[in-house]
Amino acid sequence: MLTRIDHVGIACRSVAEKIAFYESVFGLRLVSQEVNEQQGVREAMLQVTGAATGMSWVQLLEPLGPDTPVGRFLARRGEGIHHVGYGVTDITTALAAIGASGVRLLDARPRHGSMGASIAFLHPADVGGVLTELVQAADS
Amino acid sequence: MLTRIDHVGIACRSVAEKIAFYESVFGLRLVSQEVNEQQGVREAMLQVTGAATGMSWVQLLEPLGPDTPVGRFLARRGEGIHHVGYGVTDITTALAAIGASGVRLLDARPRHGSMGASIAFLHPADVGGVLTELVQAADS
Repeated sequence: MLTRIDHVGIACRSVAEKIAFYESVFGLRLVSQEVNEQQGVREAMLQVTGAATGMSWVQLLEPLGPDTPVGRFLARRGEGIHHVGYGVTDITTALAAIGASGVRLLDARPRHGSMGASIAFLHPADVGGVLTELVQAADS
Repeated sequence: MLTRIDHVGIACRSVAEKIAFYESVFGLRLVSQEVNEQQGVREAMLQVTGAATGMSWVQLLEPLGPDTPVGRFLARRGEGIHHVGYGVTDITTALAAIGASGVRLLDARPRHGSMGASIAFLHPADVGGVLTELVQAADS
């Protein structure tokens, strides 16, 4: 069902500052920046792998304000890993199967994610404390 | 420098229970279990991807006791994502470059990780709160 680790989502206070860090220290390449008003975040995607080995990303997340999911995460825990996203080939089928297993879905239907992907989050309390995202890439 | 997201390390109270969960809900395949006395953990590796897209893993970590790094993490934060591991082709070269950038190394020299890999951790305070691991696979 899961095809790869698509990305690790990292909460930070300044996307601009962390882009510079991941570029200079780890040599990652910035490929996308966008503001997602619905999720209350400014975000950046940095590519970890080349096409030959499948795409994986570091996703940097800066809250648009304190009263947003990532804003509350920063207030409670500080900067750090916020969630993990796994690739799926068919998100609707995956959500149905996972929902049937008893895991609560934060998104019963897929919604808009980074770079045109269809995404959905699972309830972390049903996944051992891990905020888990499913990602169907725009081109799949 | 970083070739892929090698794994996401997840702290849990029972590796056996979480293996069953990741197998049944997400269809992951258990490929390795070991006890690492040096790190104070019982761990399991579950494969996310097939060979065609590069290997990625969910690493489940159960502390051998409360006075271990993962035991203290669980007491402080509860179950959840503990760290992220990135693949590198040459860990010694990568550590030298990252150390030169000013990031403190928790392991100045590589040590033994899961499945025979050479690993080293970077100081989370210098990586935006993210406990970051470098992984040179045993076969690379």
